[in-house]
Amino acid sequence: MTHQEKLSTLRQAMSFHGIQAYFIPNSDPHQSEYLPEHWRIMPWLTGFSGSSGNVVVTADFAGVWTDSRYFIQAEQQLRGTGFELVKLTIPHTAEYIDWMVEHCPEGSSVGIDGNLLSLASKRAMETAFSAKKLKIKDVGNLIAGMWEDRPALPLGEIFAHEEHFAGKSRVAKLEALRQLMAEQGIHYHLCTALDEIAWIFNLRGTDVEYNPVPLAYALIDPCEVSLFIDRAKVPAALAEELQQQGIKLAPYTQIQGRLKQLQGNKPIYYEAGKTSFQLAQCIPANLPKMEGMHLSTRLKAIKNAREIEQIREVMVKDGVAMIRFLMWLEESVGKIDITEVSAADKLESFRAEQAHFVGPSFSTIAGYQGNGAIVHYRAEPETAANLHAEGIFLLDSGGQYLDGTTDITRTIALGPPSEEAMRDFTLVLKGHIAIATAIFPEGTRGYQIEGFARRALWAYGMNYGHGTGHGVGFFLNVHEGPQTLGTGASGRSATPFELGMLTSNEPGVYHQDRYGIRTENLILCVEHSESEAFGKFLAFETVTLCPIDVSLIDTSRLSTEELDWLNAYHDEVRKKLSPHLAGEEVSWLEKKTAHI
Amino acid sequence: MTHQEKLSTLRQAMSFHGIQAYFIPNSDPHQSEYLPEHWRIMPWLTGFSGSSGNVVVTADFAGVWTDSRYFIQAEQQLRGTGFELVKLTIPHTAEYIDWMVEHCPEGSSVGIDGNLLSLASKRAMETAFSAKKLKIKDVGNLIAGMWEDRPALPLGEIFAHEEHFAGKSRVAKLEALRQLMAEQGIHYHLCTALDEIAWIFNLRGTDVEYNPVPLAYALIDPCEVSLFIDRAKVPAALAEELQQQGIKLAPYTQIQGRLKQLQGNKPIYYEAGKTSFQLAQCIPANLPKMEGMHLSTRLKAIKNAREIEQIREVMVKDGVAMIRFLMWLEESVGKIDITEVSAADKLESFRAEQAHFVGPSFSTIAGYQGNGAIVHYRAEPETAANLHAEGIFLLDSGGQYLDGTTDITRTIALGPPSEEAMRDFTLVLKGHIAIATAIFPEGTRGYQIEGFARRALWAYGMNYGHGTGHGVGFFLNVHEGPQTLGTGASGRSATPFELGMLTSNEPGVYHQDRYGIRTENLILCVEHSESEAFGKFLAFETVTLCPIDVSLIDTSRLSTEELDWLNAYHDEVRKKLSPHLAGEEVSWLEKKTAHI
Repeated sequence: MTHQEKLSTLRQAMSFHGIQAYFIPNSDPHQSEYLPEHWRIMPWLTGFSGSSGNVVVTADFAGVWTDSRYFIQAEQQLRGTGFELVKLTIPHTAEYIDWMVEHCPEGSSVGIDGNLLSLASKRAMETAFSAKKLKIKDVGNLIAGMWEDRPALPLGEIFAHEEHFAGKSRVAKLEALRQLMAEQGIHYHLCTALDEIAWIFNLRGTDVEYNPVPLAYALIDPCEVSLFIDRAKVPAALAEELQQQGIKLAPYTQIQGRLKQLQGNKPIYYEAGKTSFQLAQCIPANLPKMEGMHLSTRLKAIKNAREIEQIREVMVKDGVAMIRFLMWLEESVGKIDITEVSAADKLESFRAEQAHFVGPSFSTIAGYQGNGAIVHYRAEPETAANLHAEGIFLLDSGGQYLDGTTDITRTIALGPPSEEAMRDFTLVLKGHIAIATAIFPEGTRGYQIEGFARRALWAYGMNYGHGTGHGVGFFLNVHEGPQTLGTGASGRSATPFELGMLTSNEPGVYHQDRYGIRTENLILCVEHSESEAFGKFLAFETVTLCPIDVSLIDTSRLSTEELDWLNAYHDEVRKKLSPHLAGEEVSWLEKKTAHI
Repeated sequence: MTHQEKLSTLRQAMSFHGIQAYFIPNSDPHQSEYLPEHWRIMPWLTGFSGSSGNVVVTADFAGVWTDSRYFIQAEQQLRGTGFELVKLTIPHTAEYIDWMVEHCPEGSSVGIDGNLLSLASKRAMETAFSAKKLKIKDVGNLIAGMWEDRPALPLGEIFAHEEHFAGKSRVAKLEALRQLMAEQGIHYHLCTALDEIAWIFNLRGTDVEYNPVPLAYALIDPCEVSLFIDRAKVPAALAEELQQQGIKLAPYTQIQGRLKQLQGNKPIYYEAGKTSFQLAQCIPANLPKMEGMHLSTRLKAIKNAREIEQIREVMVKDGVAMIRFLMWLEESVGKIDITEVSAADKLESFRAEQAHFVGPSFSTIAGYQGNGAIVHYRAEPETAANLHAEGIFLLDSGGQYLDGTTDITRTIALGPPSEEAMRDFTLVLKGHIAIATAIFPEGTRGYQIEGFARRALWAYGMNYGHGTGHGVGFFLNVHEGPQTLGTGASGRSATPFELGMLTSNEPGVYHQDRYGIRTENLILCVEHSESEAFGKFLAFETVTLCPIDVSLIDTSRLSTEELDWLNAYHDEVRKKLSPHLAGEEVSWLEKKTAHI
């Protein structure tokens, strides 16, 4: 079936169900960022393969809403499919809702799949729809019927994330959670987000690419803990261990039935943005409902002492892999055939040499020249660019290790850079350093300091269309909440930074068809100082260890303080990585980290 | 009656009405910042005279919630009154609501005066109260009965703000407003905020101190405009002019009755945060309700070309008055008796020499040494400190002129400053310059750049407990919305800056009992640049004209760019003010603006 044929079949189904519009969110029943293939409806239907997008189809329009990271990619992939790219003005907002309000005739019915739409999204729609009296109709998944070779739900085996790595046992985590529940008067805590469940139970899985989480639900109350997961995934010994710890195993599909059977009038707590509308409807009406972020989200974001210890160690391993890769690249480019894909593979092979490596933490972004300007570019073997000894190469990659998750971006000059590229690289670096060196009072939210990363670029009339940083999991999702370094426009980034939070610091700048620049390290929130008059102040410790390409720096644009930071950072990188490198690697690193 | 007696009488009334708590907002029926004496219940009842505070009384507790600007003042004024200071963690938030939820027994009744509580506040209370099943009971004003010498409602005469000053006629403003109403499907626009009404109708009054606004309501629909105002305030000629322009005059007190009589089902629009709960209840249930900021707020904030022209001129007048005052102060301090109050009076006398001066735009904050650390300090003749030829003097003042409103703070060394004071002054100045020189993309909100003002102080573990900037009216309220330069914590500062918005830039730092430092100029939002790839960028033009005390600057802490800004600013001040000064004043100014 071509995309045009799929669209036409979908319109027939819409007509059959009496709906004037059909809305398809790019989500699964858990509101995951990375979806099991089973739920990758958007790419199957429209051809656009980005990680973020929403689809609206009416009788005479079919559109994909996505943010500026994907504008170039979406335009290319949607050509000729019958679907149009609609550019989001503000990332992660529901501008498609406004579109439906504007374009659907008064009183129209908008079809949704209640299994995929979160309760929060449904409410936002309802509020917006009331002005035009649009009705929401749960018609289920209209794609399922026509998607003949649809992948089944994954059945990857799960495994325990040992306490030695996790730093805290699942029993202790459940106890901490129940303590919070008791304090807040919560009886049932419904857990729907996959990484929350993985963290609480110290379990990992392989159901989703890059995110080591299994498909599951959990329901926790003061007496009972139930984990809803396909039994085929649970090795017998682990099942026994869980049951001995008082964790009841139930089939994944039984969560709805279980919720329907809840009796009494004890309060149930859930996250409206992470719970599907259909699931929320299964909660009996007489149960008092309390809503908020999973109580585990904050606990998970604040890394414990053992996790922090391992994060510092995993950064050494990841840094060693990066050094070996960068050295190989420098020696090989222009001499042997290297493509964006083979470069990414090579980097993965160096990571794979490191202890406890599991796999990449996301699809490596290896963008040469103009491809580097496509913010979430994914090189494909057939179309990947060849790397030459010239121009700019942007490489954003990360690893999942049993003892931590990494995420690093380096922009590398493969030949003598232009003055403009050096200016841009230096402005981005100034922003990166401004975040790395920020000191701020307890209670400060991401959006209050995010502008530090943009100021130098803004002064030259430049900007970037993505946030400056996201929380990072511990052998878990590379994107996790609640803190972010964002502009605040989407209503997120309102969580104050706390000690132990791990966040990315990744300003960039992109020139379409020419080059992209981004410099990313992970930063750990640490204590800075305290005074009676002004309270406690926090700061960031940069934990990622890898040289920044000084050949791209215009030092005349850096202040003394900025130069000092860079030299001190390079001293740290050299000191920490050298003991783990061979002789010629040490010499190479010494050259790359020499003071400027 | 002592404050203790008042409290005890209030508790009897509470008991009579069967309420377990009584809540008194520091507001009037228009949710004004400055209240006519008639509604200054909080100071009469508690003794605390700050401009911001809320009171909660229960059988065994009486508290005043205010923000850190007022902590020192409130502690002093509340001593022995039976009322306790409760410190707000986040300014302008309703933390007293959480207090009531925590401390009132389940099912309690909380009394309010529906004439003073905004609809938005009532809703926020209701939501929070539901957890504890607290009931809100409109028991009216329990203070009125015991306040024997309560001032009557003011009856100050109103006058037209001529088009020559306003830059746009009231007819044109009404037309613009009706255009917006039509676009948004609004039939009735209920106007409740006094400065909105003053702006729309080009009317000014004297009912409130500092804010030249009359008490009024307005109701605008496509066919009719009604202005609800006491006829005794309206000169006959002006009444006739208004009526000829199709504006119907009705008594102030008839707004409730008029709303109750609205028929049909045409949508009415109002601002829930600026409309009293009681007034909102007068709107018939069958009228569709639309809520949002007064449609005039954005129009008012974006100064028109004629206003901008006059703002630049009024800054020259205000700067001349400041120069004369600063010169007089420097020559007189240590030689004649000067108190904080007499200094403020002297400054006002210099402003009064300027054309079109009407009065101060707020109560001058003249704080010597430790008094300067009380953020909204108001010197009283009996207790005002004497100024000596030593230490630090903070002076925050402004003027209302027919052709604009000013607001300026200078911190002046009256003798050789300490190293610490110089460090602090310089860190504050770095923040001030960081805002003054900010360049940012269209759509940027205040909270995205407000941190620029704090970064240098934060690096030394210092901070300040107020926002960095507020919108400023045009011969109107010195504090006006919608834009602010704030931390975003209170949910405000979410309005993007637009061309023509006038805002204050006033970082500071305060050391209790020692000194306070603040440097404030007004900044006008102007265009900076535009490119196809990155869109339009905005910047600020500093319009306030007055030297910054260089004797307080530690130049070693300023970057070259910061020094350049300061010298360029001083060049501008000298160039623009000199033609309006006498010979010795010019020499003085030349000395004060010499390059450093």
